[in-house]
Amino acid sequence: MLAKEMKELIVKGKVYDLGQPYFPGMPHHPNHPPFAFSLTKKHGDVMYPNQVSSANDLFATGTHTGTHLDSLGHISKGGKLFGNVQASRVQSYSGGLKGVGIDITPPVVRRGILLDVARALGKKVLPPAFPIGRKELERTASKEVVFLKPGDVLLIRTGWARYWKDARKFVSNERGAPGVNLEGAKWLAGHKITFTGSDTTAYEKTPAHDLPVHSFLLTQKGIQIMEMLNLEGIAKDRVYEFLFVALPLRIIGGTASPIRPAAIC
Amino acid sequence: MLAKEMKELIVKGKVYDLGQPYFPGMPHHPNHPPFAFSLTKKHGDVMYPNQVSSANDLFATGTHTGTHLDSLGHISKGGKLFGNVQASRVQSYSGGLKGVGIDITPPVVRRGILLDVARALGKKVLPPAFPIGRKELERTASKEVVFLKPGDVLLIRTGWARYWKDARKFVSNERGAPGVNLEGAKWLAGHKITFTGSDTTAYEKTPAHDLPVHSFLLTQKGIQIMEMLNLEGIAKDRVYEFLFVALPLRIIGGTASPIRPAAIC
Amino acid sequence: MLAKEMKELIVKGKVYDLGQPYFPGMPHHPNHPPFAFSLTKKHGDVMYPNQVSSANDLFATGTHTGTHLDSLGHISKGGKLFGNVQASRVQSYSGGLKGVGIDITPPVVRRGILLDVARALGKKVLPPAFPIGRKELERTASKEVVFLKPGDVLLIRTGWARYWKDARKFVSNERGAPGVNLEGAKWLAGHKITFTGSDTTAYEKTPAHDLPVHSFLLTQKGIQIMEMLNLEGIAKDRVYEFLFVALPLRIIGGTASPIRPAAIC
Amino acid sequence: MLAKEMKELIVKGKVYDLGQPYFPGMPHHPNHPPFAFSLTKKHGDVMYPNQVSSANDLFATGTHTGTHLDSLGHISKGGKLFGNVQASRVQSYSGGLKGVGIDITPPVVRRGILLDVARALGKKVLPPAFPIGRKELERTASKEVVFLKPGDVLLIRTGWARYWKDARKFVSNERGAPGVNLEGAKWLAGHKITFTGSDTTAYEKTPAHDLPVHSFLLTQKGIQIMEMLNLEGIAKDRVYEFLFVALPLRIIGGTASPIRPAAIC
Repeated sequence: MLAKEMKELIVKGKVYDLGQPYFPGMPHHPNHPPFAFSLTKKHGDVMYPNQVSSANDLFATGTHTGTHLDSLGHISKGGKLFGNVQASRVQSYSGGLKGVGIDITPPVVRRGILLDVARALGKKVLPPAFPIGRKELERTASKEVVFLKPGDVLLIRTGWARYWKDARKFVSNERGAPGVNLEGAKWLAGHKITFTGSDTTAYEKTPAHDLPVHSFLLTQKGIQIMEMLNLEGIAKDRVYEFLFVALPLRIIGGTASPIRPAAIC
Repeated sequence: MLAKEMKELIVKGKVYDLGQPYFPGMPHHPNHPPFAFSLTKKHGDVMYPNQVSSANDLFATGTHTGTHLDSLGHISKGGKLFGNVQASRVQSYSGGLKGVGIDITPPVVRRGILLDVARALGKKVLPPAFPIGRKELERTASKEVVFLKPGDVLLIRTGWARYWKDARKFVSNERGAPGVNLEGAKWLAGHKITFTGSDTTAYEKTPAHDLPVHSFLLTQKGIQIMEMLNLEGIAKDRVYEFLFVALPLRIIGGTASPIRPAAIC
Repeated sequence: MLAKEMKELIVKGKVYDLGQPYFPGMPHHPNHPPFAFSLTKKHGDVMYPNQVSSANDLFATGTHTGTHLDSLGHISKGGKLFGNVQASRVQSYSGGLKGVGIDITPPVVRRGILLDVARALGKKVLPPAFPIGRKELERTASKEVVFLKPGDVLLIRTGWARYWKDARKFVSNERGAPGVNLEGAKWLAGHKITFTGSDTTAYEKTPAHDLPVHSFLLTQKGIQIMEMLNLEGIAKDRVYEFLFVALPLRIIGGTASPIRPAAIC
Repeated sequence: MLAKEMKELIVKGKVYDLGQPYFPGMPHHPNHPPFAFSLTKKHGDVMYPNQVSSANDLFATGTHTGTHLDSLGHISKGGKLFGNVQASRVQSYSGGLKGVGIDITPPVVRRGILLDVARALGKKVLPPAFPIGRKELERTASKEVVFLKPGDVLLIRTGWARYWKDARKFVSNERGAPGVNLEGAKWLAGHKITFTGSDTTAYEKTPAHDLPVHSFLLTQKGIQIMEMLNLEGIAKDRVYEFLFVALPLRIIGGTASPIRPAAIC
C-alpha cells in the first residue's frame, strides 16, 4: 500500500477497536477448544527483594475461539489447500500446517471498507440464517457510496455482535446465523479483495454443512476470513472507509490466530 | 493522536513486523509457562459434504511468553499496583487482575521511536548485563537526531534478537542480558513516554532480582513494557521514527498479552 | 467391596496396565481438544546451587482425549442428567458440572471382568460399525466361563487397540468402530454393573449420532463409561477376572478424567 | 509383589483416597504452570437427535501442580540424570525427557507404609521448615510398630494438608514447609524403598535452594517422589500399612504426572 493512500484514509486520527474480549465462558464454536485461564501466581505469592512481586498467568485456547483470522490452510477441498497444495503432505499434529499456516500472513495494513448490511436493510440485527448475496452487498455499497478496490479488506456487519454476551444465542448452533452466501462471496472475490470478515461465529450464512463460502474463498481464491469482529463502534459512527490493521500472532503452522483488529480513520 | 501527526509519520508506506514467531521450544523465561501447540484435527479427520475438510488447533501459553505487552497490574510494590490499587483486592486465580488487566489497554497507535543503542555504541549486540543508562540513551538519540515527545512509544535495541534461535543464550538466565537500568528508566519517564519495549526477555538489565525498572515504570509511572520485540528489520533500514501499532488481545484480567507489533513508516 | 473378595481376585500378583500413552498427535475424537505438551524448562535452563537443575512441563488436553472415564454428568437427555438433575442449573463454563462432575467418583476398586468379544467371535479385530448385542456378550461370557455380579466393572475388547498407532484408523470417524449397541447396554445394565469400558474411541457402536448407549448408561442407569482402554495385555494372557483399579483425577466439575487403569490378578 | 503379600495387606477392604482435588486457584508452586479449566461445550450448546447433548471440557496444567509423581528424569546434578544419563542428550521442549520420563514408570502397586511424623511428635501440624531426620523417622516407626521392607512405598505425614484450602499458606514460599532432610532421605534410601511421598508442595524441608533431597533420591537412588498427598484420612484411622496404588498417566517424556493414589487396607 502506498503512503499516499494510507494518509488519505486517516481523516480524524481516531482508532476503533474491532476485537471482542477473551474470558472463560466467552462464545465459541463447539468444534473449537474454549478459552481457559488462570493466574500462575498472584501478587504476594513470591516476594522479590524490596517488596516487589509479580502476577503472571496462563491461558489455553483454540485459535478459532474469539476474534480471529483464518490461515490459508484452514480449509481443504478434495484434500487440497489453496495453491493446489496436498494437505496430507504439510500437516502434522505437533507441527500444524507447514508453509500454509498463519505464520506466513504478514501484518495486515490495508484499506478497509465496512458494509453495514444490517443498517442498509433497515434492521438492528439480521435474522438467523439470513443470506447476504450480491443484491444485499450492492445495495449496501450503494447506500454508503463506497467503491471496492483490489487489495481491500471488506468487513460485513450483521449486527450479531449484540448477542455476544449471550454465548448460546451468539453461536446459534441450531438456528444458524446471517452471513455471506456463495453468490455474495463470488461478488466479493470479483472485486479482488484480500481479506474479509464479519461479526458472527462462522462468517458465512449458517447452517452450512459443507462450508461453501470458506471453501471458495480460502481454497480457491486465497482470501482469508476473520470472524467474531466487533463492528458496533465503527457502524455507529458510520465509518465506512478506514485504514485497517490486523496483526495475527506468528504461530508456526497455526490454522488461525486470535487478533484484535483496529480501524483508523 | 492527531490525524496530521499520523500522516507525517507515514513516509514510505512500508510495514515492519516487530514480532517473534511462536512455536514449541521457543525462548521463554523459566518463570512463565511455555508455548504448547497441537492440531485439534487434521484435514481429512472429519469430512464434510463435497470433500470439504478443516484443520483446527489449540495452544497453551503464558502471556509473558514470546513478544508481549505487560499490563499495568503485572508488578506490585509493597502490595500496591499503579494508582495505589491494593493488589489483594483485585486479584483472583480464575479472574486475573480485575480492572488493571491487559483488557483496559486500548489499541496502541502512537508515534514510535527506535533508539538503536547497540549501533550507536558500535556493537553488533550489547554484552550480557550491559546497563543502558541516561548517557547511552542520550548518545543514541543524538546520533539518530531524534527527539522524544510526550505520548511516544520508545523502543530500545540491544541486538539481542540475534540470539532468538538459541533459546538458552537468548534467555540468558545466568549471565543476564543488556537493558535499561533505573537511571535510564527515569530518563525515559521524564520524557513522558507511554509505552516502551526492547528485544530481550526482561527489558531491563538483568540480573535484577527486585526488577527495579519494572517496578518504577509500571507501578509508579504507568508506563507499560514490551519484551522480545524483533527490531532487526527497522534497525537495518535505520527507521528511527514511525507509526507504531500494537494490538494486545483483550484478555480479561490478563497480566499481559502476546502481541505482534508493527512499525509503519 | 469386601476384603475377602479382593483377596480372591488376586491370584498371581500380576499387574496389567490398561492405559494408552499420551503424546502430541495421539488419537482423539475431533470433538475434543487434543493433547498439547511442552517442557516449561529444560535441565540447565535454570541452575540451582551445587549444579542442581530441574525440568518441568505443561500440557493441555480435553478430558475425553486418551484413556478416560466419563463423569455421570457428561451426557444429558431432554436437558436432564442422571438423577433427573436439570443440566442448565449445574453447569458453567468456568466451573464445569457442579455436583455431577468426575470429582464425585471415588477411587474405583472393584471386581473386573473382561469380555474378549473379538476372540470369542474368532476375529483379531472386530470390523468397523460392528454391533455388540446381547448374543455376542452372552456367547463371550459363556466361552470364558465368567459370571457377572452386581457391582462389577465390565470391560469389552474389540481388538481395536491394534490401530492405536494409526490415529485416523483408530478414530475411524467415517466408517465407525465396533461397540456395544443399545440391546447390549441393556443386557449389561440388567447385570447391575457399575462401570464399563472398551478399547475404542466412543465405547458404543459408531456411527451413532444420538449416542443411544451413552444416553442410556449415563443418564438412565448411572453406569460410567471408559474409553480407549488398552486391553491387549490381559487378553493375550486370557485374564478374564481381576481386581480392577481406576483412579480418576478429582477435577472439580470435570466431564471426565484421564485415567490409567490397572488390572491385578 | 507376590499375591500372598498383597492379600495380607488387604484387611478391611477399605479404600482411602490420597489425592487432592484439581480446580482453578488450587495451591501450586509458583515455578509450575497452574491448573486452568473450561467447559468446551455446555449441555444444550449442540443438540444431537432425540434431545441428547453432551458437555466436554479442557484443562491445562503443569504436571507438578496438584498431587503428582515425579519422573526419574525430573532432577539433574552436574547435568546428569539417574543412571548417569546426560540430560542434554535426551531432552527437548516438544518431546520432553526421552526414555526417562514418567511414561517408563509402571503402575505402582506395592506395600505402603505411613509414617505419621506429626502425630508421633505430638503435633497437629509440623511447623514451617521443620526438618524430618533419622531420629524423627525412627521414633515414628517405633511408635507405630512398623518395619520397612525393600520395595516399600513410604509416605510421610506432616499434617500440612490442613492448609490446602489456603493456597498461600499451603505453598508457604517464604517460611518454608516441613519435610525430610538429607539425613532422613539417606535413612529412607538405606531401607531400599522404591517410592516416597508427603503432604507438602516440595516433599523435602524447605527452603532448600539446591533441593538436596530431590537430588539425592532421584539422581542417585532412583527413588521417585510424590507431593501434595492427602494423608488425613488414613492418618485419622491410624492405617500405617496398606496396599498402595498410584497410576501415573503415561505422558511420553513427562517430568511428572498428576495422580490420585489410593491406599487399600
